[in-house]
Amino acid sequence: MLSAEIIAIGSELLTPRFIDTNSIYLTEQLNAIGIPVVTKSIVGDDENYLEHAIRASLQRTPILITTGGLGPTEDDVTRKVLARLLQRQLILNNEVLAKIESRFKARGVAMPSNNARQALVLAGSDILPNNHGTAPGLWISHEKNHIVLLPGPPSELKPMFEQACLPRLQELAGGVVLARSVYRTTGLAESTLDARIAPIYTKYKNPETTILAKPGAVDVRLTARAKTRQEAEMLLKELGGQIDESLDDFIFARSEQSIEEVVGMLLVLKNATIAVAESCTGGLVSELLTNVAGSSAYFMSGVVVYSNESKMELTGIPPLLLEMQGAVSAEVARGLADGIRERARTTIGVGITGIAGPAGGSPEKPVGTVHIAVAAPAGTQHRQFLFPGDRLRVRRQAAQAALDQVRRLLLAM
Amino acid sequence: MLSAEIIAIGSELLTPRFIDTNSIYLTEQLNAIGIPVVTKSIVGDDENYLEHAIRASLQRTPILITTGGLGPTEDDVTRKVLARLLQRQLILNNEVLAKIESRFKARGVAMPSNNARQALVLAGSDILPNNHGTAPGLWISHEKNHIVLLPGPPSELKPMFEQACLPRLQELAGGVVLARSVYRTTGLAESTLDARIAPIYTKYKNPETTILAKPGAVDVRLTARAKTRQEAEMLLKELGGQIDESLDDFIFARSEQSIEEVVGMLLVLKNATIAVAESCTGGLVSELLTNVAGSSAYFMSGVVVYSNESKMELTGIPPLLLEMQGAVSAEVARGLADGIRERARTTIGVGITGIAGPAGGSPEKPVGTVHIAVAAPAGTQHRQFLFPGDRLRVRRQAAQAALDQVRRLLLAM
Repeated sequence: MLSAEIIAIGSELLTPRFIDTNSIYLTEQLNAIGIPVVTKSIVGDDENYLEHAIRASLQRTPILITTGGLGPTEDDVTRKVLARLLQRQLILNNEVLAKIESRFKARGVAMPSNNARQALVLAGSDILPNNHGTAPGLWISHEKNHIVLLPGPPSELKPMFEQACLPRLQELAGGVVLARSVYRTTGLAESTLDARIAPIYTKYKNPETTILAKPGAVDVRLTARAKTRQEAEMLLKELGGQIDESLDDFIFARSEQSIEEVVGMLLVLKNATIAVAESCTGGLVSELLTNVAGSSAYFMSGVVVYSNESKMELTGIPPLLLEMQGAVSAEVARGLADGIRERARTTIGVGITGIAGPAGGSPEKPVGTVHIAVAAPAGTQHRQFLFPGDRLRVRRQAAQAALDQVRRLLLAM
Repeated sequence: MLSAEIIAIGSELLTPRFIDTNSIYLTEQLNAIGIPVVTKSIVGDDENYLEHAIRASLQRTPILITTGGLGPTEDDVTRKVLARLLQRQLILNNEVLAKIESRFKARGVAMPSNNARQALVLAGSDILPNNHGTAPGLWISHEKNHIVLLPGPPSELKPMFEQACLPRLQELAGGVVLARSVYRTTGLAESTLDARIAPIYTKYKNPETTILAKPGAVDVRLTARAKTRQEAEMLLKELGGQIDESLDDFIFARSEQSIEEVVGMLLVLKNATIAVAESCTGGLVSELLTNVAGSSAYFMSGVVVYSNESKMELTGIPPLLLEMQGAVSAEVARGLADGIRERARTTIGVGITGIAGPAGGSPEKPVGTVHIAVAAPAGTQHRQFLFPGDRLRVRRQAAQAALDQVRRLLLAM
């Protein structure tokens, strides 16, 4: 079976503040065509360490992908080290040089002489064009090895890899095709969701199922591999259909959409508007809703009613109610939702009140207690939650639950 | 100069969803005592690849730290591979075995026979006690090399490293001590800030200066190394004092605090309260302010006034003003700040209106135009901005600028 190794080159990657995201991306892409990554390394801009690392890789793994070290400065040593190691000449490629010069020209600057270095290519290598930067990539086939040199900036590496490398690697890998699908859910804990669908997905080795929990949402991802796209899609459909049925309306998206995007889409679809009165979430629900481009079409107003006075003044909650029930209560959540809906004259009103912590909890109303109400033409629905975790997590889960309650209501409208 | 290499062991680390955070932690710790990391690798639970990687490391680098592969299963091959490579015997250590057994006993379970494997230690190695798990670490001195085997779980690795390895490495490194300081700024672009302080910091190789730009904030970090803490602190003080003076009131924090925490502190200090009326930031300013624990003491209310109606109703902006000046104008920002301050009866009122994009821009008011006004007892201050970037970046920069305007006003109060 074909396998690959990745060497990321750059001294900055050896400092604690940097994460080598390229290798994560490349691993995902390689795995997708059935090529496992057996070793990943990071070396600095140091000729000796790099030579050592490349030599070791060539001995054990058929495919080596390097990232970085193709820049115009003395520090960028990848080409030089490989030329020495493989005993190949570095040749100035005039076509590449002309392309680099024209890139600078287009920006109205003369090419610094340093950049000519980027037009040096190893004899007998294939040039991988760079449409988003100056340094071209190189594909070198050497004895049993394939060595692929990619530039470091992700904006240059990704299109180059997908256009010039992926098809070639796929051919080497024997034409494995991969298809993926995702089911984004909210409202079920990871363990509950897993218990529900494990009896289904454990029957299948292909597609592979992974479950990923995020704050307030759990994603189910399927990856199918087959010889043809059609076959892969069919495998996905068979298992996906069963998972879809099992998780039903806990699924808020069957693509990479966020719940606020789904809610926005449904609001547009139903020609509805929305306003939010939130206490413990402190503006998060409004912030999420208005983060979606075009949200001014349906989001009218939001109020963050932290003090009791603001609850009374901005949503018309009666003082007596606050006193009798306390600010964190079903009645106040309903009052917030009804009040903001009436005042903003929207189709839907959302009311949220709760205790995010760390202070403010009591035996009757512990930290994490949240009341969410959604008011709509047909009436007002209320739900009570007890969310685990710290202030940040309670706020996030509450916001996600509120958006989900709105989503369910819109679906039923 | 002493240098180190890190090999992270575990097949899960070669999948796209995992990030090897241990090596980031170890790099930070090693750098702090003056030991650079020259290569980092990740290998799966595979004896051949691991042996290959360790052998290559021993040839080039005096210190090797491995993480993971010390578990009780067949998959965990670190000890076995090293024993073979260094031609040392694996010996069952009765003390370690007793400790593992007692850990299980304390939890009321019998030790699975597999776990006895974790009591195997290489002949002539030093045992690094694990107080948070079963697998002990090992320190092996071999010819010119030091090889340190650490467990994979961060909760076990970190205390073991700090207690048993750091002092020993520090001794090897010749007792280098490190001190750090940070200046968090806002209001200056990274390049402007750099131009201002480069003439100062480039004169010093020690402390080392790094500048890190985040959305709406730029951090200046100094790292000093010396033989004693006192000496390191003195080096920090000398350069830090000059940077502090040069950046002056652009510095919002001299610790890891966020600007909303600083604003919160100042509000408490000045016994002041705050309310926010925001349009283009969509609730972000309220969200940031209320994200701070204890913010209910000073944050009274926030309104997200997306529609013109909500601007009129929630903050009392006159319809004629909106019509004459447009919603995105200095006058409306002032009106929002004054209106919310009056209605919420707070010390400070914040008003924000702008165009976050992608739509809504015009030649006179392009995307990124933001007006921010802060109302206080002494009057209302207004500033106009043109922020670069997409919707998310414009919103973040606007929120940061608004909080900074509040900070400056509070400092002057």
